[in-house]
Amino acid sequence: MANILFEHPLNEKTRSYLRLEHLNNQLAQAANKDSGVEVFTPLFALCDITDRCDFRNDLLKELDRHLLQIKKWRNVENVNQDNLNQCISQLTEVRRDLSYSTRLGLNTRNDRFLSAVRQRYNMPGGCCSFDLPQLHYWLSGPWSIRKAQIREWQQQFELLLRAIQSILQLLRQSGEFVTQEAKSGMFQHVSESPLALVRIELSRDSLCYPTVSGNKQRFTLQMLRFDNQTRANNDVAFSLACCQEPK
Amino acid sequence: MANILFEHPLNEKTRSYLRLEHLNNQLAQAANKDSGVEVFTPLFALCDITDRCDFRNDLLKELDRHLLQIKKWRNVENVNQDNLNQCISQLTEVRRDLSYSTRLGLNTRNDRFLSAVRQRYNMPGGCCSFDLPQLHYWLSGPWSIRKAQIREWQQQFELLLRAIQSILQLLRQSGEFVTQEAKSGMFQHVSESPLALVRIELSRDSLCYPTVSGNKQRFTLQMLRFDNQTRANNDVAFSLACCQEPK
Repeated sequence: MANILFEHPLNEKTRSYLRLEHLNNQLAQAANKDSGVEVFTPLFALCDITDRCDFRNDLLKELDRHLLQIKKWRNVENVNQDNLNQCISQLTEVRRDLSYSTRLGLNTRNDRFLSAVRQRYNMPGGCCSFDLPQLHYWLSGPWSIRKAQIREWQQQFELLLRAIQSILQLLRQSGEFVTQEAKSGMFQHVSESPLALVRIELSRDSLCYPTVSGNKQRFTLQMLRFDNQTRANNDVAFSLACCQEPK
Repeated sequence: MANILFEHPLNEKTRSYLRLEHLNNQLAQAANKDSGVEVFTPLFALCDITDRCDFRNDLLKELDRHLLQIKKWRNVENVNQDNLNQCISQLTEVRRDLSYSTRLGLNTRNDRFLSAVRQRYNMPGGCCSFDLPQLHYWLSGPWSIRKAQIREWQQQFELLLRAIQSILQLLRQSGEFVTQEAKSGMFQHVSESPLALVRIELSRDSLCYPTVSGNKQRFTLQMLRFDNQTRANNDVAFSLACCQEPK
């Protein structure tokens, strides 16, 4: 049976980045099929998060830290210099585009359609045709038009997401999967260098899902059984990758 | 080009019934295709509304009013008595099932999975794999299992929705479509008998959507242009059905 990958952030920054990436993936999925009103769930969640917090400066700093660390590998033996240079130029480009940007995200305030829908969207059942006849009109239109519109909204987050994806990619590459076992459903880990992210892969056959609590130096992983949401009392094998913060 | 149907309730009861019907349709749609996390939007909205308000007694009274009115057509000339009797027995059955029922709706409190998801569902981006690893596990499972589960949740609302659909069907049948015109985007209507619902059908070509304000005796309909959300200044043709409250 297939494996499932779980990712758990160990600091607030990574937590936000994973959240934004997750929403962006959901939005991209909705933009790829003839979807209805559900496209607004990830769209407005992205708006809410980017309205509350300006990620630009944090991302620029984070990109600088990664660039600094990567450049240390220049002229080191056994390091593929072509790959390295490609990675550096990619990050530099993302950094430059981001530094030239003004506002990251979608401004719904000046869009009468979006702001009306957003205002009612989170009320239970607040998107009936009598609540939002304009939405009902929009949904009745051909998918090609709606798709183009969704893509346009999506593009407002592109710069932000490109930076986040670059950072998450570097983070993910920094950890290699190692087979581990959670004895009686429990596993503890202490790390010498600060961690940003742990990745856990396990088989669906285990009938378990992991929960992680801890901080960047140490964490505890518990395997819970899906059927009764309590800790498994058997040993559960899994793969673990510990991804480090850039120094 | 296709016509679009807009419905506007003129009392609180009809408003609630339309809302519940709309959510139930959304849930049924989600249950019919390989859908992801979006199934929880209509599900939890149904839970929210039915948790807040017990519709049982209101529905029983409403069904009684409709039954009383329908029975007046018995032995009236030119009324198809077979159809009438079928309708009466259908309503009587729905009424009986509803009167025997205890709780309408889905109790998520005793379901650890559902209550965990429901708690986080409305937070922007609150359904990441690290927020709800159990949801991530559930979503990774085969659609056949998830579908069966969704159907099970859906069934908890079936009795309620059967009653609502019967009432809405009768309401809708009580009004016939008549061609009308909104002069300079405006239309006013005064009714002698109290109305519960107006139904407006117009062509997508009109590039307009209707908004309705008023009460059960009189209402004003405005046609707004979708592109700039302001009132159309041309005449807009549409079909209007005024559906009456049972006496």
